[in-house]
Amino acid sequence: MPSFFDGLPEREPSADNGFAGNRIRRLSEQRNAQSVGSALADADARLYLFRGDKTLIKAGGNPLFAVGEATALGAVATGIVVLLGWADNASNGGGPRLAAAIAETVAIDETRVAFTDLRTLAVTGGVSAEHLGAVAQGRALLNWHMRHRFCANCGAETAIVAGGYRRDCPACGVQHFPRTDPVVIMLAIAGRSDGERVLLGRQPHFAPGMYSCLAGFMEAGETIEDAVRRETHEEAGIRIGRVRYHASQPWPFPSSLMIGCHAEALTSEIARDEQELEDCRWFSRDELRLMLAGTHPDGITAPPPIAIANRLIAAWVER
Amino acid sequence: MPSFFDGLPEREPSADNGFAGNRIRRLSEQRNAQSVGSALADADARLYLFRGDKTLIKAGGNPLFAVGEATALGAVATGIVVLLGWADNASNGGGPRLAAAIAETVAIDETRVAFTDLRTLAVTGGVSAEHLGAVAQGRALLNWHMRHRFCANCGAETAIVAGGYRRDCPACGVQHFPRTDPVVIMLAIAGRSDGERVLLGRQPHFAPGMYSCLAGFMEAGETIEDAVRRETHEEAGIRIGRVRYHASQPWPFPSSLMIGCHAEALTSEIARDEQELEDCRWFSRDELRLMLAGTHPDGITAPPPIAIANRLIAAWVER
Repeated sequence: MPSFFDGLPEREPSADNGFAGNRIRRLSEQRNAQSVGSALADADARLYLFRGDKTLIKAGGNPLFAVGEATALGAVATGIVVLLGWADNASNGGGPRLAAAIAETVAIDETRVAFTDLRTLAVTGGVSAEHLGAVAQGRALLNWHMRHRFCANCGAETAIVAGGYRRDCPACGVQHFPRTDPVVIMLAIAGRSDGERVLLGRQPHFAPGMYSCLAGFMEAGETIEDAVRRETHEEAGIRIGRVRYHASQPWPFPSSLMIGCHAEALTSEIARDEQELEDCRWFSRDELRLMLAGTHPDGITAPPPIAIANRLIAAWVER
Repeated sequence: MPSFFDGLPEREPSADNGFAGNRIRRLSEQRNAQSVGSALADADARLYLFRGDKTLIKAGGNPLFAVGEATALGAVATGIVVLLGWADNASNGGGPRLAAAIAETVAIDETRVAFTDLRTLAVTGGVSAEHLGAVAQGRALLNWHMRHRFCANCGAETAIVAGGYRRDCPACGVQHFPRTDPVVIMLAIAGRSDGERVLLGRQPHFAPGMYSCLAGFMEAGETIEDAVRRETHEEAGIRIGRVRYHASQPWPFPSSLMIGCHAEALTSEIARDEQELEDCRWFSRDELRLMLAGTHPDGITAPPPIAIANRLIAAWVER
């Protein structure tokens, strides 16, 4: 019997994206005022620790700290502590998983733990995909708390509640929830008699030689497909017709949801937004194969595999 | 030649959702400190006006006010004014389109304009789909300003910039952008020997007899597909396998992006979250046909066509 799900790729494309390996059981409906306290009292509790943009990693690549270790490092008393959820099976204790920020003022013995930037951690595979996903969750949540101490409605200082998944204002009563910002990222594809081409651009801050998919924050009042068409037209002057959702990715810099699409280009003449892009052009499949392999004769490269742009390109190259 | 876009439905499902008819050309890269002032000086400028949650509509169902009319109503001097963008073609002037909030303290002659709730406007078709989309954009943006006057980072009062698409903090320098909250909404489908069934639930605040798709806010650190699986399991205890994106919808209550998916149910025994749902059960295709038609013998109904839940159900019923 034909099913609604026929035709989906055998492996879910989103599962292959960087930071998508998160297996934390969030049990969001159970969050309450006692969540963090109860979790810290659990002998199986483990914490992911952060200082600023860096994650703390123990010898052997282990990012999990016991409550005693985290307390000794000053994470529990001085920093923000949030409950991510629970480990997904009993083989690793099944206990609570938390994330905590260590205040900059606390001294840490750097001979015993490494401080690793989250991008580096992702690119180098310094921790498992499962840990990387949990670290992304923790980093995004802690970052939100650090930048949202005050009530946007009235200016008063707010308090953490619900295991770190809400901040309440004692002055005006407004509840504030962590934000997740949807971003469309798209590979525009133009059919030509001599073979298809895809559109990639370069932002000034990219690594030298790297080209990537165009992308932009979604705005209120538009669908995903409309945002793909708007952003492609605004950044490159290209008109888009049909849009096909491919995959999504949590992107913790600081808290984006990347929504990856393939987009049908209806025009080919590029009118680049010079503020946004320092170059923008069409690439052939052969050229992209070389870029993905890192063997392009001009040193032009694609984004690394942890980026959904890489996966959008590879899906088109390999089809 | 086969194309990446083969197999997409002829008409984009997102285009049929309520509030998806927005045709405003945003030209987001051109927003600056002068955007609103320049737009108001344009003879072709028109404004959508709001008071609280209501939209102002002139006789004949026209929601557009000239600058002089809006000024006379007190919208320009006393309220927040934002630039949505430009009308999409010259036939309607091609001029700037703005949105403005009228302060509650200003008296308005209610014999000359109607105040309509946005849901009512959507359900009754009181304005065109194009206007409805623009009103959704304006309402979400104005609502964000009204609830974000202060800097979440330091508590100081912030100032509107970039045509209403940013608020800057004069004290700490942080830039704040409007938020759009991604929500997954899904129709879980279970295959059975006697025909497929789909999962719908009832929240206590729903209209009597109405059942809808399960839904929930996405969180940092998860993909769309993972969020569909998490929410369905948290709310109904049902395990989900494959997930297929169907369509998306801007939902201005206050600023959600609904991401609609069909989801393959792997289990059938429901364990309802009693805080969230007052009922949750499986429905057959025959039953849903009656619900969509409003002829179910028990008075059970589906959400109205402006809701993406209706479209997710209809897409499954009609396939």
